[in-house]
Amino acid sequence: MTVRHTTRFTVEFGDCDPAQIVFYPNFLKWIDSAARHLFVAAGVPSWAEMEAACGIIGAPLVEVTARFVRPATYGDEITVESWVDEWRAKSFVVQHVVRRGDDVLVEGREIRIFARRHPDDPKRIVAVAPPDDVRRRLG
Amino acid sequence: MTVRHTTRFTVEFGDCDPAQIVFYPNFLKWIDSAARHLFVAAGVPSWAEMEAACGIIGAPLVEVTARFVRPATYGDEITVESWVDEWRAKSFVVQHVVRRGDDVLVEGREIRIFARRHPDDPKRIVAVAPPDDVRRRLG
Amino acid sequence: MTVRHTTRFTVEFGDCDPAQIVFYPNFLKWIDSAARHLFVAAGVPSWAEMEAACGIIGAPLVEVTARFVRPATYGDEITVESWVDEWRAKSFVVQHVVRRGDDVLVEGREIRIFARRHPDDPKRIVAVAPPDDVRRRLG
Amino acid sequence: MTVRHTTRFTVEFGDCDPAQIVFYPNFLKWIDSAARHLFVAAGVPSWAEMEAACGIIGAPLVEVTARFVRPATYGDEITVESWVDEWRAKSFVVQHVVRRGDDVLVEGREIRIFARRHPDDPKRIVAVAPPDDVRRRLG
Repeated sequence: MTVRHTTRFTVEFGDCDPAQIVFYPNFLKWIDSAARHLFVAAGVPSWAEMEAACGIIGAPLVEVTARFVRPATYGDEITVESWVDEWRAKSFVVQHVVRRGDDVLVEGREIRIFARRHPDDPKRIVAVAPPDDVRRRLG
Repeated sequence: MTVRHTTRFTVEFGDCDPAQIVFYPNFLKWIDSAARHLFVAAGVPSWAEMEAACGIIGAPLVEVTARFVRPATYGDEITVESWVDEWRAKSFVVQHVVRRGDDVLVEGREIRIFARRHPDDPKRIVAVAPPDDVRRRLG
Repeated sequence: MTVRHTTRFTVEFGDCDPAQIVFYPNFLKWIDSAARHLFVAAGVPSWAEMEAACGIIGAPLVEVTARFVRPATYGDEITVESWVDEWRAKSFVVQHVVRRGDDVLVEGREIRIFARRHPDDPKRIVAVAPPDDVRRRLG
Repeated sequence: MTVRHTTRFTVEFGDCDPAQIVFYPNFLKWIDSAARHLFVAAGVPSWAEMEAACGIIGAPLVEVTARFVRPATYGDEITVESWVDEWRAKSFVVQHVVRRGDDVLVEGREIRIFARRHPDDPKRIVAVAPPDDVRRRLG
C-alpha cells in the first residue's frame, strides 16, 4: 500500500513577495522538504547508511513540474501531502498536493533517481534501480 | 523577431545544500528573476504603469517545469537565456536555458497569464489576453 | 508582565549549507518570523488596522545582533523564545533565544521602531513613540 | 595594507517582502557572500586546501551585527565593500558597508574564527590563531 505523508508548514512574512503572496520558489522548497519527510516517515535509511549498505548516495531531482492553483499569504497554515506515484526502471515519481484546509494551492510532481558514484569518476553519478527495500517501505 | 535576453548570476556558498550543489529551488529563483529581466530589457512597462493604462496588475505563474541536466556549485558563473516561446489566447510560455559556459544545466518552462482584478471582487484575479504592445515588444 | 512567546521551527535540508549546518541568515529569518508571531500572540493589531487607527505602517528593523553559540542541522527541531526586552522613547528591543531542547544555539537582539509615513513625503518614514496599547499588550 | 574588496549584487523581486523592500536576512546573505569573495580575491586558499595544509576547515561566524540605514528594493544595484578590520588572538572582524551608489544602506560587522576539528571529537571544533599566511594576504 502506498505510504502517504503530510507535512505542515506556516507561511511566514518573509516567504511572500511584493505582490503579498508566496514567492513561488518557496513552494518548491516546501515540496523538497516534504519529499524528505516522506522518506523519513517511511523508515527509509539515511543517505549515509544507504551509501555504506549499497553505495546509493542520494535521490537527486531530474525534473519537477508545479501547477499553481491558488495563492497563499503569510499566516496561512498549509499542508503538503506526498507519495510515490510511480516506480520506473531507473527513476521514480513523487507526487505532492499543497493545500490550505481543503483548498488545493499547488500540485507538484518530482522525478528523482537513485544515484551511485560512477566507478571510474567519483565526481560523476549514475542512476541505479530503486532498491527493493526502499520500494517496499514507500509502497 | 523574438527577443532573447541573457541574465548572469554567480552561485554563492549559501545557494548550495549539504550535497555541495545548488539547492534546486534556487534555480527557480534565478529563472523567475530572468523572466523579469527579459520584460525590463524588452521595454515592457512596469506593473504600476500597466495597471494605470489597462488594468493589468502582473503576470503570475500558473505552471513551471524544470529539467535538471547538470548540477552547479558555488563559484560557478551561470547564465539564463530567456524568451517568450509561445503566445496563447490567455497565457504565454517563457522558456529558459540555464548554462555554465556552453553546458546546459537546467531547462525551465514557465506558463504565465496576464492578470486583471476581478470586477466584482478585487481580491480575485482574471486572466486576460496578452496586450498587443507587450507582444510586439517581446516578439 | 512581559509576554514571552515561543515559536517552533524544523530545520530542513535546504536550510543547510555545504558545511552541513544551518546557513546563518536562515537563523535571522526564523528570528524575524518569531518577532511577528510574538506580536500576533500578544493581540497586537495588524499593520493594516494600525495604519487606519493611528497611521503606523510597521515596525522596521534598525539593528540586529546575533551570537552563534552552537550549530544546528537538518532534522533538528528548534524553538525561538521572544520578548520585548526594553521600551525606548522611539524604539524598542526584541530579544530572542534560539534553542534545541535546552541547548542555546543563537541569541538575537533586534532594535525596531514604529514607523509612520512622513507628512511631506509618503515615501519616507518617521519613527514615532511606541503606542500605549501595544506596550500594554507586550508588557 | 588592508585588502578591501567590493562585490556587486542586483536586488531581485524575490528578495523583497510584502513591504516592497529587501527582506532583511537577504542583506546578511549578501554580506556572507561578500566575506567569501574577499577571501577569494585576496588569494586565501580554499578550505579543502587549508585543511590539507594546516587542518583549518573553515571560518565560522560567531557574531554578526547589522545596522539598517536605508531600505532597498528590486532593480537596485548594490555593492558590498568588505575588509578585515581587526585581528584578535583567536578571532577576526570583517567589516562590510552595503551601498547603492554613494548611499550607505547597511553596515555589517562579522566576528569569525578559524576552526580546526577537536583532536578528541571530530564533530566538535576548536578556534585557532589566524594563520600568518592568511593575515598577510588580507592585510
